[in-house]
Amino acid sequence: MSTLPSELTAGEIAAATRCGSLTCETVTRACLERIQAREATVQAWQHLAGERALERARALDAATGPRGPLHGVPFGAKDIIDAADMPSEYGSPIHRGHRPGRDAACVALMRRAGAVLVGKTVTTEFANVHPGKTRNPLDPERTPGGSSSGSAAAVADRMVPLALGTQTTASTIRPASFCGVVGYRPTWGDLRLSGVLEAAGSLDTLGLFARSIDDIALLRDVLIGAEPKPLAETGKPRIGFCRTHLWDKAEPSTQRLLEDTACALAQAGASVKDAVLPAAFARIPDAHRAVSSYEFTRNFAWEIDHHWDAISETLRSGRLAQGMATSFEQYREAREFLAACRLTLDQVFESYDVLLAPAAAGEAPVGLGSTGYTGFCTLWTSTHVPAVTVPALQGPNGLPIGVQLLARRDHDRELFAFARWVQRALR
Amino acid sequence: MSTLPSELTAGEIAAATRCGSLTCETVTRACLERIQAREATVQAWQHLAGERALERARALDAATGPRGPLHGVPFGAKDIIDAADMPSEYGSPIHRGHRPGRDAACVALMRRAGAVLVGKTVTTEFANVHPGKTRNPLDPERTPGGSSSGSAAAVADRMVPLALGTQTTASTIRPASFCGVVGYRPTWGDLRLSGVLEAAGSLDTLGLFARSIDDIALLRDVLIGAEPKPLAETGKPRIGFCRTHLWDKAEPSTQRLLEDTACALAQAGASVKDAVLPAAFARIPDAHRAVSSYEFTRNFAWEIDHHWDAISETLRSGRLAQGMATSFEQYREAREFLAACRLTLDQVFESYDVLLAPAAAGEAPVGLGSTGYTGFCTLWTSTHVPAVTVPALQGPNGLPIGVQLLARRDHDRELFAFARWVQRALR
Repeated sequence: MSTLPSELTAGEIAAATRCGSLTCETVTRACLERIQAREATVQAWQHLAGERALERARALDAATGPRGPLHGVPFGAKDIIDAADMPSEYGSPIHRGHRPGRDAACVALMRRAGAVLVGKTVTTEFANVHPGKTRNPLDPERTPGGSSSGSAAAVADRMVPLALGTQTTASTIRPASFCGVVGYRPTWGDLRLSGVLEAAGSLDTLGLFARSIDDIALLRDVLIGAEPKPLAETGKPRIGFCRTHLWDKAEPSTQRLLEDTACALAQAGASVKDAVLPAAFARIPDAHRAVSSYEFTRNFAWEIDHHWDAISETLRSGRLAQGMATSFEQYREAREFLAACRLTLDQVFESYDVLLAPAAAGEAPVGLGSTGYTGFCTLWTSTHVPAVTVPALQGPNGLPIGVQLLARRDHDRELFAFARWVQRALR
Repeated sequence: MSTLPSELTAGEIAAATRCGSLTCETVTRACLERIQAREATVQAWQHLAGERALERARALDAATGPRGPLHGVPFGAKDIIDAADMPSEYGSPIHRGHRPGRDAACVALMRRAGAVLVGKTVTTEFANVHPGKTRNPLDPERTPGGSSSGSAAAVADRMVPLALGTQTTASTIRPASFCGVVGYRPTWGDLRLSGVLEAAGSLDTLGLFARSIDDIALLRDVLIGAEPKPLAETGKPRIGFCRTHLWDKAEPSTQRLLEDTACALAQAGASVKDAVLPAAFARIPDAHRAVSSYEFTRNFAWEIDHHWDAISETLRSGRLAQGMATSFEQYREAREFLAACRLTLDQVFESYDVLLAPAAAGEAPVGLGSTGYTGFCTLWTSTHVPAVTVPALQGPNGLPIGVQLLARRDHDRELFAFARWVQRALR
């Protein structure tokens, strides 16, 4: 095979290991070699377990039973997601060396499917905004985005074909956009979060990273416990081009690229119309801030009371200060407002199969101190709809920018099919 | 003071320790003495930390800063709720000796308020139905109910005035009814679950145990991070007497007691009318089973794959077999059905301030092999409404039976006020 195994998608690896044209050990070794060559630059990993991954790969090669849908597929898990045989440090010095007692549900389900956990990827502090050490693999002077920084960077850099992250605000879609990979934030509530550190439970979801939309569909099937089936072909979608009320936060070059994208999709046969969100949606970012800050601040009561000095100033004066200033009544009011927005958005989706929106303001910003602007994700995270970003655009510095696609709640598979249609139309 | 400190409510203890008429050490010692005298019979505790509790009580006595609303109040936490300084064993031999890295949010918030964690209380296996060692303190031949068995028994037996549990089906209201204490299951989503082992996240809540409704209100204020304020007096409530479609599952004596209760409340001045639930609600128990089994089975993928032999036959052939047989599509359909029932129930509550319903089929059954019938809680757990049970009835064997009261979502404090009105009216 002329392609390096580390370049393959998860679906390609599983097909090759199941038919015997590649061993699991070969694939894992190729990923570990890629990591060894690049980790000093990218710094995607909080904890690497190369030897254990190789042992596991050899055991998979030697096993004679039925082979799972991710047989021999290496993956990484954000370090707020537990694995029984690795530390969980949550991006904080407070939890250095902590050993959880079990695999998170998502890790166990991937392992059950034959996947090989290579290590834990870097997260920002408690999946909030204070950055970890990871750099953007496409330009190490730029942020990879966050909070699932290491997962996005590792997949982008061909270290692993799949990685697990989470999203409470913009923590999957934004780093996927900045690093040039496919990112997926599921319908809220679909994928189990047992064993994942809670940031703000009413908004938290898993987030998946891959280099193809088919891999995302495959991984989701594994995580819902279904027999994977290929994505169906879809007809030409009814697309709502949704600039959102935050449009002027997008860089002019991003605005032009997205306008061009909308035109290109119309030329490819899609129905493309401007979708305007209700005016009340302009209040979503404030409501999101109230809900996430309130929940986050109660969830981290132990760290606040026992390790205040080991919490970053960014977090103390940001999310925690906001949360301490938010009363339960304000929280509940904001939560109810977001619940009402979900129903309103259902109505918007009566006219569209999919919404097309910015994934980020532009290319990954220069500098490692900030993980970038979150607004273009907050709207959709708050409304619990599934989101996918595909790396379809190229910014002024030659770096990727994602196109974000949204579907109504519970239409995740349909969203994948439309995203694949969009990707093909833009090629 | 003539009353033993272990007999006092949390509110009474906090008032006494804050004004100095009792020391925290005296209170904690009284609770520990009660535990020592009774634990061989009741077996409420999975892990006791008496020395550490006394140290903490002495530190509270010595502290000069502001005193919290639970200053010196001893409490227990169900052993699926983490504390940084104690093991979390989840009612399973698989996790014997496991040490979590931090306090659950609820434990940290109680400690912040000055409460003293005495130990971890017995849970059924993974908060499902396979019982632990706890016995009903009112009759050791009878079940205390589950899954928060130790928390209910410890509060009933005057070992601690407050305890934390959880509810996914009937795990707070049922044991509170069987043991004769006040139990509270909050509006779903209000109280943070970080650091609590997930059973089925779309149904899980904390559950609170106390010996007075005012203590429940106080503890809830602490857990939402609000300054506690006394419950307001309420007018005579509009009560819907809701026998539910499961009425014939209640023992005849329970039926008679509840009919008498409805009459007594009407005589006390309440408006009491028969409340009939929509016929579709008869499908709730099946939908609850699908949702909880699906989520539970994915959450415990690691235990299933690595420790199958250490899982009870009850759990394997019950919840897990059901969950493995439930597809994602069936799960999602059941989840949507329950979401629709929540909206329907909002309409029912337009006519009533509070619904009056059975908390359990009758007194705690004889035998320790089963934790009892769950149906009378499933309806309300599934609809996310707040529930309180007050020990207002006495069954044919002289044992308590709870009266369950329900209010619409987000009306938890109003529910407390009505529950206190009901308790007073029945005295």
